[in-house]
Amino acid sequence: MAAPVEVDGLTLDAETVALDRAHVFHSWSAQARVAPLVVAGGSGSTVWDHAGHTYLDFSSQLVNTNIGHQHPRVVEAIREQAGLLATIAPATANLTRGRAAAAILGHAPDRLTKVFFTNAGADAVENAIRLARLHTGRDKVVSHYRSYHGNTGAAVVATGDWRRVPNEYARGHVHVFGPYLYRSEFWATALEEECERALRHLERIVQCEGPDSVAAILLETVPGTAGVLVPPPGYLAGVREIADRYGIVLILDEVMAGFGRTGEWFAFDAHDVVPDLVTFAKGVNSGYVPAGGVLISSQIAATFDERVFPGGLTYSGHPLAMAAIVAAIGAMEDEGIVENAAAVGRDVLGPGLAELAERQSLVGEVRGTGVFWAVELVADRATREPVAPAVMGAVRAACLARGLLPFVADNRVHVVPPCVVTPDEAREGLALLDEALTEVTTDL
Amino acid sequence: MAAPVEVDGLTLDAETVALDRAHVFHSWSAQARVAPLVVAGGSGSTVWDHAGHTYLDFSSQLVNTNIGHQHPRVVEAIREQAGLLATIAPATANLTRGRAAAAILGHAPDRLTKVFFTNAGADAVENAIRLARLHTGRDKVVSHYRSYHGNTGAAVVATGDWRRVPNEYARGHVHVFGPYLYRSEFWATALEEECERALRHLERIVQCEGPDSVAAILLETVPGTAGVLVPPPGYLAGVREIADRYGIVLILDEVMAGFGRTGEWFAFDAHDVVPDLVTFAKGVNSGYVPAGGVLISSQIAATFDERVFPGGLTYSGHPLAMAAIVAAIGAMEDEGIVENAAAVGRDVLGPGLAELAERQSLVGEVRGTGVFWAVELVADRATREPVAPAVMGAVRAACLARGLLPFVADNRVHVVPPCVVTPDEAREGLALLDEALTEVTTDL
Ligand SMILES: Cc1ncc(COP(=O)(O)O)c(C=O)c1O
Ligand SMILES: Cc1ncc(COP(=O)(O)O)c(C=O)c1O
Repeated sequence: MAAPVEVDGLTLDAETVALDRAHVFHSWSAQARVAPLVVAGGSGSTVWDHAGHTYLDFSSQLVNTNIGHQHPRVVEAIREQAGLLATIAPATANLTRGRAAAAILGHAPDRLTKVFFTNAGADAVENAIRLARLHTGRDKVVSHYRSYHGNTGAAVVATGDWRRVPNEYARGHVHVFGPYLYRSEFWATALEEECERALRHLERIVQCEGPDSVAAILLETVPGTAGVLVPPPGYLAGVREIADRYGIVLILDEVMAGFGRTGEWFAFDAHDVVPDLVTFAKGVNSGYVPAGGVLISSQIAATFDERVFPGGLTYSGHPLAMAAIVAAIGAMEDEGIVENAAAVGRDVLGPGLAELAERQSLVGEVRGTGVFWAVELVADRATREPVAPAVMGAVRAACLARGLLPFVADNRVHVVPPCVVTPDEAREGLALLDEALTEVTTDL
Repeated sequence: MAAPVEVDGLTLDAETVALDRAHVFHSWSAQARVAPLVVAGGSGSTVWDHAGHTYLDFSSQLVNTNIGHQHPRVVEAIREQAGLLATIAPATANLTRGRAAAAILGHAPDRLTKVFFTNAGADAVENAIRLARLHTGRDKVVSHYRSYHGNTGAAVVATGDWRRVPNEYARGHVHVFGPYLYRSEFWATALEEECERALRHLERIVQCEGPDSVAAILLETVPGTAGVLVPPPGYLAGVREIADRYGIVLILDEVMAGFGRTGEWFAFDAHDVVPDLVTFAKGVNSGYVPAGGVLISSQIAATFDERVFPGGLTYSGHPLAMAAIVAAIGAMEDEGIVENAAAVGRDVLGPGLAELAERQSLVGEVRGTGVFWAVELVADRATREPVAPAVMGAVRAACLARGLLPFVADNRVHVVPPCVVTPDEAREGLALLDEALTEVTTDL
């Protein structure tokens, strides 16, 4: 296992920052405001800089390193495939690619029989939308306002959050509210009521848009970036019924929620629903090599038996990415990594966060499952007014100062360690978060 | 160097095809019509199946393996980085990422100072379009009908060929004709006339669309998939003038043409033009790890110093991809790979294809530069009517039967070997193509 290097560490950190500031343009940022953390290496749930400062990774980076950093089996598989055949065109057949497809489908419902591989999440969503539109001959895609589906033309307009607004260059997208009792859009006061009203709202919008014009309902099984909004029991089954009633394709986006994050292989396994298309990326190989894709039902796949599917990409089914998928899924199976995520959620993060919520006045709500939790910070528990951005900046700084790498989104800290996080690491992370919140509350 | 494996080869080929047919959904295809070649490994300009059949790769797969298959320096860099740190979030700073940006910019004009990294070509184009729209505050993107820019929402609508038509879910795209004397859209009979008229056509369309609404002119420096349409002298300089006259951003798409393909580092190096944004992928690391990106002028980058850039992706600046970029560019520099591409084009492919065009009655035109050539096949040299698709199928089969892996597009064979192809391999490939054309002509 690799370990932090200290030789010339400070010099390398300085070189890293200098090159970054001079030449690297960053995602979703005002470039002059970027003050990046240097990361030189990692192992399991820990990362470090060149000078040897370590951080407990409660972010899984962008919620993708489900098997932790530098899992030896996946590293070895990449190294082996690199020596054998790094890249090959998608029009060829490749053994590792076939095995990766079989490994993924082995955890999916029988209805899903084929995989279209992409490079990541956004292009998985693009191609799922394309499949649904061409399969149905319809145009519109209904998705949640509280969602993120990727940054490309169609995917970003399917997105509901602020990232959509400056990017609305595509048409045919309709947005609805999903269930979120803590900030209900439906004047609901109980979970069952929230669920019923969200379903009624969805069906009314489908009816008003014209059901014959709706190709797909596209939902994150558990909206992630929007705040780990675990759907209430019955919501997804209700969506499935609406989709069936109007001949609409149901796409579940499992890019963030899939492959262990919720304590299940697929997040929808915990709900009474089988989708027609599933998008995946991140956890499928923990992002060790860029990869994503779409699981396709046999019925939709058959639409393209004789008809050309008008989508594709140079690196579809890239051997290096495929080798990382086969190894990551194998490791997750053999080492009980999904079960670990479920247990840590049930035994440590769930109870620990509930307790923290009681003690810390800044916390408005905690919610989640597995290693997928959100801690919502509010200025006032009665009005539920979110804390100001400056408070979130202070929380982030207080965490980093303690060696905890947090995931901060809007007024929330997402507690999203790798699925391999140990109970002790989970407890340690919660304790550091607790200290950070205490510090920030005292300074307010 | 790896070599073909023959142990159990036939069994592995069979398993590969069976898994592929059962579970892998292919790009741009009717799935029942896919009969893929199995590729198990490769080295330099050669690939092989599990049973040990070898093919001379005159396709560079999807015109991406510019340094050939399994270049040891790049394989080693991937293996080393995999052991160090496979993946890290884009918001961090990472030494390999900074070095990759510096290595790329080292070959670019001074005006280009920053790199936004993506996973591949399509998302590079998406983000270049986004940068141009937000920088100018304008909407429309003018590109060529004869072009390919990727399969995502905006990128695929910027595309001009058939792949655009079933995917028109974005707005703000305008298409024009580019120069192509062999099939002139401007009733031109000489190259200079074709160039002048293409520029006049472009400017008229910009004027009619409303120059103040045009954010970007987006062109492949040398349109690749559309037929290796090397622009006539003065065309790109003329486009630059039009862009400047109306305050339009000039984006050159170098995803296929860049990094040695034309015998230059950037294809635009051979033309009198400096673009504002450059998209790249493929040759930057030969696709050993999925990667692409946008080179950004200092002026456009500065727009986003204080203003948030609303684009991003999980694997932007992925360390494994970055390590492959640093190694691939290093190898190309140290081994004179770009110079080799230029020499093979000048001394072998250029003269050899010209000679083949004289001898083979099916050939209507050959054109190209470096290791980037198109051989256009026609049913009638006078009318220039393209040969039927069945003829192209026969040419492809005749090449494969002789151990030559060709790149076939519409009525053309593209001669696009790796930039490391030796003069002897280039001659051998031409001889096999010659034989294949003779066989098909005899059978007509
Ligand atoms: C649910 C979901 N879909 C799609 C995406 C886009 O994935 P990528 O960044 O790999 O394009 C993300 C990224 O966070 C996501 O969380
Ligand atoms: C010029 C050009 N731009 C963009 C693309 C899209 O690249 P990718 O398939 O990596 O998305 C291609 C692919 O062939 C291309 O040739």
